[in-house]
Amino acid sequence: MNKARVESFSDGVFAFAITLLVLGVQVPELAAANDEQLRPALLHALGQLVPYLTSFATIGIIWLNHHRMFHSVERVEHTTLTLNLLLLLVVAFIPYPTAVLGRYGALPSSAFLYGAVLTLLGITYTALSIHIQRKQLSRNKTVLRSGMLKNFAGTFTYPAATLASLRYPRISVTIYFLLAFFYFLTAGRGTNLEEG
Amino acid sequence: MNKARVESFSDGVFAFAITLLVLGVQVPELAAANDEQLRPALLHALGQLVPYLTSFATIGIIWLNHHRMFHSVERVEHTTLTLNLLLLLVVAFIPYPTAVLGRYGALPSSAFLYGAVLTLLGITYTALSIHIQRKQLSRNKTVLRSGMLKNFAGTFTYPAATLASLRYPRISVTIYFLLAFFYFLTAGRGTNLEEG
Amino acid sequence: MNKARVESFSDGVFAFAITLLVLGVQVPELAAANDEQLRPALLHALGQLVPYLTSFATIGIIWLNHHRMFHSVERVEHTTLTLNLLLLLVVAFIPYPTAVLGRYGALPSSAFLYGAVLTLLGITYTALSIHIQRKQLSRNKTVLRSGMLKNFAGTFTYPAATLASLRYPRISVTIYFLLAFFYFLTAGRGTNLEEG
Amino acid sequence: MNKARVESFSDGVFAFAITLLVLGVQVPELAAANDEQLRPALLHALGQLVPYLTSFATIGIIWLNHHRMFHSVERVEHTTLTLNLLLLLVVAFIPYPTAVLGRYGALPSSAFLYGAVLTLLGITYTALSIHIQRKQLSRNKTVLRSGMLKNFAGTFTYPAATLASLRYPRISVTIYFLLAFFYFLTAGRGTNLEEG
Repeated sequence: MNKARVESFSDGVFAFAITLLVLGVQVPELAAANDEQLRPALLHALGQLVPYLTSFATIGIIWLNHHRMFHSVERVEHTTLTLNLLLLLVVAFIPYPTAVLGRYGALPSSAFLYGAVLTLLGITYTALSIHIQRKQLSRNKTVLRSGMLKNFAGTFTYPAATLASLRYPRISVTIYFLLAFFYFLTAGRGTNLEEG
Repeated sequence: MNKARVESFSDGVFAFAITLLVLGVQVPELAAANDEQLRPALLHALGQLVPYLTSFATIGIIWLNHHRMFHSVERVEHTTLTLNLLLLLVVAFIPYPTAVLGRYGALPSSAFLYGAVLTLLGITYTALSIHIQRKQLSRNKTVLRSGMLKNFAGTFTYPAATLASLRYPRISVTIYFLLAFFYFLTAGRGTNLEEG
Repeated sequence: MNKARVESFSDGVFAFAITLLVLGVQVPELAAANDEQLRPALLHALGQLVPYLTSFATIGIIWLNHHRMFHSVERVEHTTLTLNLLLLLVVAFIPYPTAVLGRYGALPSSAFLYGAVLTLLGITYTALSIHIQRKQLSRNKTVLRSGMLKNFAGTFTYPAATLASLRYPRISVTIYFLLAFFYFLTAGRGTNLEEG
Repeated sequence: MNKARVESFSDGVFAFAITLLVLGVQVPELAAANDEQLRPALLHALGQLVPYLTSFATIGIIWLNHHRMFHSVERVEHTTLTLNLLLLLVVAFIPYPTAVLGRYGALPSSAFLYGAVLTLLGITYTALSIHIQRKQLSRNKTVLRSGMLKNFAGTFTYPAATLASLRYPRISVTIYFLLAFFYFLTAGRGTNLEEG
């Protein structure tokens, strides 16, 4: 019952953050409404879709894993609540670096900011995940452990790509996208939400 | 229980996307606050209501059908989750082409973008729908099949109108609107959500 | 179960529309960050709070009445769904006239637009309410009937104030505010949501 | 059941308001997309994170306490509903002073507005809390009373810091931040949402 309210509040933040991403894709601001100007402006705006897709996939995966993680939680105590709010803080912030990266493309500062937020996301997620395991709050350790292995991989790749972004922003943004795409395709593997 | 969380996350995205549409209707930006300037600016803004209404009806219908589709689902496994997230990706993006079409009117590029997104919506919806049928995950095949017939109709009409928009953008936008209106009036027919 | 999903989707739109209202209150756009300029700009912005408060109270009341209305509904069929989506269409649109009225103050066109949307809200709400009664879908006719009496009062006052706004916009806006305030204070009277 | 709908509507407003905060962090508006200009602009924008973090923590705490408060409520009657809507009115407004304070920094008027809204938050929360106690609607008086002690502390500190902000805006903003941080760390202490 109470776990349900924590889950439903978290689901609200996940669903809302994922939907707010679209506001970061710029509507072209043209003085006149003619197709000659609008066509190239829209094509340019569609270049913003790479960070949009990366962030959508990332929030989608975190939502899915959050779901699975809390499924095996029996007690929601103080530290879990605090760590969960820290995770939601980072999730709710994702639309900002997404909009910056979309608007200015893969510059060192925009790519670094984006990577830094994804790194923070990995850290807060791992902290919550480790806490839940350590307190032996979980029923299904195998599921969590396999989740953590993949998670640690990300925890190392994201900060590495973030540092690299200061010299090779385009390569880093490509890595962010490919990681999200990889996670997106594999995140649900083996999940049966009814057996879960 | 777990199916419920997938449904509630999806409902969240549907409800937010449908409410975010209003941000695409532009508040006039005038230097002075006098009625002589505001009146024509507001009348112009109300012309944006056709794409607003089309998108509202479209998301409303997809929500209704999603509801009915998942009602007959018994197991939510990996592919269903992935296809569902793809559908939500398109739904969450709808406010963008709606705002562009509202702001610039029926130009070839704005009408094409809008139609292309509706076409993608039809494709992801059909993919999810076919997957659910093929895996024989559904209890109520007749309901799904009749839904698919109407759906396939849309799947052909939307891309056709999208292609036509490059020459006849106004006609295409009218077709989008009429299709949404038609679906809106017929979508719930025969539905009794309590017997469902 | 299914009624629950209609209610939760509606609650999402209500909660989201009520929260989006804040985006209509303008953050002052000043070139420099000094208090001499910010202070009058903020005082001016607080003048926008009258439409903000009016809309907040209005959506809050409609949510409360919607809650009560659906509590007594047993079957959610096609027409109820369609009328409910029409009501949500108007609710989701409220942030727009609120932002216009807040930005430009009580001019004839801004006050007329605002009043027209509240009138539409009354019409769609009354239509849903009458439909539910006529189909004898309700358990608790007395509650609905008393709700309808108050509702009809609004249904007459809103269009009258809307028409009057073309000459006396300030008076109309005051009436909108007082009506919302009156409904807000009396809306829950006699409600006991547990006995409901 | 009905209490659940009040809680879920409230949770929606909390979750949306907390996620909307990110729109107050400004995406830099530069004419050209080069790193020399974007880097300082982003560093400047990150200065906006103090009010963002303060508001996030504040809404998170109020959500947590709201949760706990309603857990012990048995009947939701008229006054509780009205006071709850008043609390939500203030919560939904928080993104506005947060955006102003983020954009213009700690000036007297921006710090005063922010503090005044937090003071109103304390007042509406205390009013709801006292009402619930007075009507003896609560099962668990000790939990509420300890919550109120901390709450009264805030009720005095916030208006004091708000008044002080007219002379010492930076100090006041620091106090707002430290208070939120303190509440955030202690808010869940002793909470076990399953035993609750």
